[in-house]
Amino acid sequence: MTTSTAPFSGLQLQSKVQDSGELVLSLATVQTPAPEADEVIVQVQATPINPSDIGLLFGPADMSTATFTGTPTHPVVTARIPAAAMPGMAGRMNEAMPVGNEGAGIVVAAGASPEAQALLGKTVALLGGAMYAQFRRVKASQCLPLAEGTTAAEGASCFVNPLTALGMVETMKLEGHSALVHTAAASNLGQMLNKICQADGIKLVNIVRNAEAAAALRGIGAEYVCDSSLPGFTADLTEALVATGATLAFDATGGGKLAGQILSCMEAAINRSILLTHPKEYSRYGSNTLKQVYIYGGLDMRPTEIVRNFGMTWGVGGWLLFPFLNRAGVATAAAMKARVSRELRTTFASHYSKEISLTQALSAEAIAAYGQRMTGEKYLINPSLG
Amino acid sequence: MTTSTAPFSGLQLQSKVQDSGELVLSLATVQTPAPEADEVIVQVQATPINPSDIGLLFGPADMSTATFTGTPTHPVVTARIPAAAMPGMAGRMNEAMPVGNEGAGIVVAAGASPEAQALLGKTVALLGGAMYAQFRRVKASQCLPLAEGTTAAEGASCFVNPLTALGMVETMKLEGHSALVHTAAASNLGQMLNKICQADGIKLVNIVRNAEAAAALRGIGAEYVCDSSLPGFTADLTEALVATGATLAFDATGGGKLAGQILSCMEAAINRSILLTHPKEYSRYGSNTLKQVYIYGGLDMRPTEIVRNFGMTWGVGGWLLFPFLNRAGVATAAAMKARVSRELRTTFASHYSKEISLTQALSAEAIAAYGQRMTGEKYLINPSLG
Repeated sequence: MTTSTAPFSGLQLQSKVQDSGELVLSLATVQTPAPEADEVIVQVQATPINPSDIGLLFGPADMSTATFTGTPTHPVVTARIPAAAMPGMAGRMNEAMPVGNEGAGIVVAAGASPEAQALLGKTVALLGGAMYAQFRRVKASQCLPLAEGTTAAEGASCFVNPLTALGMVETMKLEGHSALVHTAAASNLGQMLNKICQADGIKLVNIVRNAEAAAALRGIGAEYVCDSSLPGFTADLTEALVATGATLAFDATGGGKLAGQILSCMEAAINRSILLTHPKEYSRYGSNTLKQVYIYGGLDMRPTEIVRNFGMTWGVGGWLLFPFLNRAGVATAAAMKARVSRELRTTFASHYSKEISLTQALSAEAIAAYGQRMTGEKYLINPSLG
Repeated sequence: MTTSTAPFSGLQLQSKVQDSGELVLSLATVQTPAPEADEVIVQVQATPINPSDIGLLFGPADMSTATFTGTPTHPVVTARIPAAAMPGMAGRMNEAMPVGNEGAGIVVAAGASPEAQALLGKTVALLGGAMYAQFRRVKASQCLPLAEGTTAAEGASCFVNPLTALGMVETMKLEGHSALVHTAAASNLGQMLNKICQADGIKLVNIVRNAEAAAALRGIGAEYVCDSSLPGFTADLTEALVATGATLAFDATGGGKLAGQILSCMEAAINRSILLTHPKEYSRYGSNTLKQVYIYGGLDMRPTEIVRNFGMTWGVGGWLLFPFLNRAGVATAAAMKARVSRELRTTFASHYSKEISLTQALSAEAIAAYGQRMTGEKYLINPSLG
C-alpha cells in the first residue's frame, strides 16, 4: 500500500474576532503537512453546521449587520460585534480560528504505523474541530471507520448529536431521575432522543414551539408533546409531568422563561402527587424533590429569567458533552460510542435540508437560513465541492 | 422535683391563607396539653423573626394592602394575595398555621422520663416551628440546654443562622471549592460567616448594598467587601475573585441580576488567570471550572435574571439548611452544633434592633419595619410579654 507524503493544499473556513469590534469570516488556503506515523489525512466530504458550531463561527456578532465582499471563490463576511460583548472575546482576539466540530470523509494519506495504514482509502467519521476544511490531519485513533457502504454524509453527525442524546439518558440514570423533559424537541437530536427513549422504555416529555414540530414528533411515536405556543402550555406540561414523573430537563434554548416554567410545572406536578398521597406534608419551602434543568444550548440568546415559585430544591446549570463523558467514565463512554456505531442508520440517522460548499456557507442566503438556528433547517457542508 | 401536669393556656400567632384570596394573621388562645414522659413544656421568652419565618408568616400576600382590626389584645391583620399566587397555596389553604422556626425559654413542665425531668427550670434553645407562642410542647431531645447564665434572648437564634453559616463553609469543602462569596453580607448571618472564615483562614468576598454595610463589615475585620451600589461594582468583585479564587457563592437575595453577575465575574477572574498562565487554553464554551451560586433566601422577590456570558460550566440552585444537614451526615452536623454551643456568645452572638410582644408583632408599625427584610432591622419576639 502506498502512502502519499506530499502536503495537501486546500481551503479552510476561518472565523476571526478583530479588536476593531468586527467579526470576519473567510476562506484561507492552508497547507496540511504530511502525516506523522500515527496520523492520517482525511479529505472532508461532509460536515454538519451544528448550533455549537454557529457559536464559534459567529461569536456574539450581530449578523443582521453582515456585509459580503471578497471574490466568488474567496468570499469575506464582516459583521459588527456589540461593544458589551467584546471583553468576553479576549481569549480569541485577532486569531483566525478554524471551525467545525465533526465530519466525515475519505482517508487520502496515512503515516507509517499499521493503524494509520489500515485506514487508507476508508471512509471515516471524525471529531475534533477544524472540519470546515478540505483536508484535516488527525491521529488514526481519532477516526471512527464507517461500516462498508455508509457514506460520508451518513456518518458526518456521528458524535455531537448521538452522544449528547445518549448523554442525557446517562445523566438521568447517574443523578437518580426516572424520566426526561427535552426542549426544541423536534430537532435532529430530539428525534434521536425519542428513538432512544422508546427503545429503552424511558418516558420523555417533548416541548416544541409550534404545531408542525408537534405533529412531526407524534409522527415518530412521541407520546408526550407540549406546544409552548398554545395558551394551555403550562397546564399541558404539568399533566405530562404528572404522567411521567420527570424531574430532569435538558433545555436547548437557554433564554427567556422556559427553564423556570419547567421547574414551576415540575413542582406543581410533585405537589399534586403529595396532596393525593401525603396531604399533611406541606412545606412552605416547597417539595424536597430535586428539580433540575440543564441548559445545553443557547438557541434563545435572551437572559434566562427564573420566577422562583417552586421551593428551594432546584438547580439550573450548564451541561456539555465532554465534561459529562469524563464524569461518566471510560466504560460508559465506550458503550455510548458502540451504540452509535451499531445504530448509525436507524436511531442516529441525521437529516439535512441542504448540502452546500464552503464557498456557499459564506453566502448571504445560506447564513440567513442556517443562522436562524431553526429546527429542521440543518445544513451539511461538503468541502470537496470547493 | 415536681412536675406540673395541668394544661397551659396561652397565645399563639397564626397565619391563614383563605380561599377568598386573603391572608389573615391573628392571635389564638391555645391549650398546651400535659407533656408525655419524654416531653417538656417550654415557656417561650425569645424567638427571632428570621427572613425564613416571614415567608410562612406573610406567604405571597401584598402587605401594602394590610388592614388592622381586632382588639388591642387580639389584633387581626388582613392582606390581599395576588390571584396568580393562589394556586401555589393549595397545600396550606384555610389552615391556621403556627409560625416561628426557633426560640428559647424556660422549661416549666416536664414528663416523667429522667431526660425530661433534668430540664425542668432550665433555659433551653429550641428548633421546630410554632415558636411564636407563649408555650411550646417539645421532645426533651429537641432542647439544647444553654450554659449557666445565658439568657433566652442570647440563645434564641442558636440554630438557623449559626448552622446556615457553618453549612456554607461545609458545602464549600464538600463540593471542592476553596473560598466563598456571600451577599447581603452585613446581616447577622453574614457577620457570623466573617467570624468563622477569619477563625478558619477561609477567604470570603462580602457583597453589600450600601456604604454603611461595607463600613460595618470592615469594622469587624472583613478584607474583601464589594458594594453593589457603586458604579465599579463588577470590576471590584472581579478583583476580589481573582484575589480569593472563590467559585462558590451563597446569595440571600435571589432576585434580579446579582447571581448572574457573580457567575460572570467569576468567569472573568478565572479567564484572567488562564490567560496569564495557559493563554492557549481558550475555549469558546468558557472555562471548565465549575462556578456555582446557591440561592438560600429571597430578599429580592423579583425573578432571577441570568445573562449567560460565562460559558457552560455553571450552576444556580436552591440551598436549604435541613437537606444539607442530611447530606453532610450525622458526624458533621453534630460537630457544627457543638461549635455553636461553644461559641454562642462570641462567633454566633445575634443582635436585635427591638424586642416586641406577640401583640406588637401584629402592629402596623412593627410589620412595616421587619417586613422590609432589611439587614440590621432584626426583631425579637418575647411571647411572655403578651
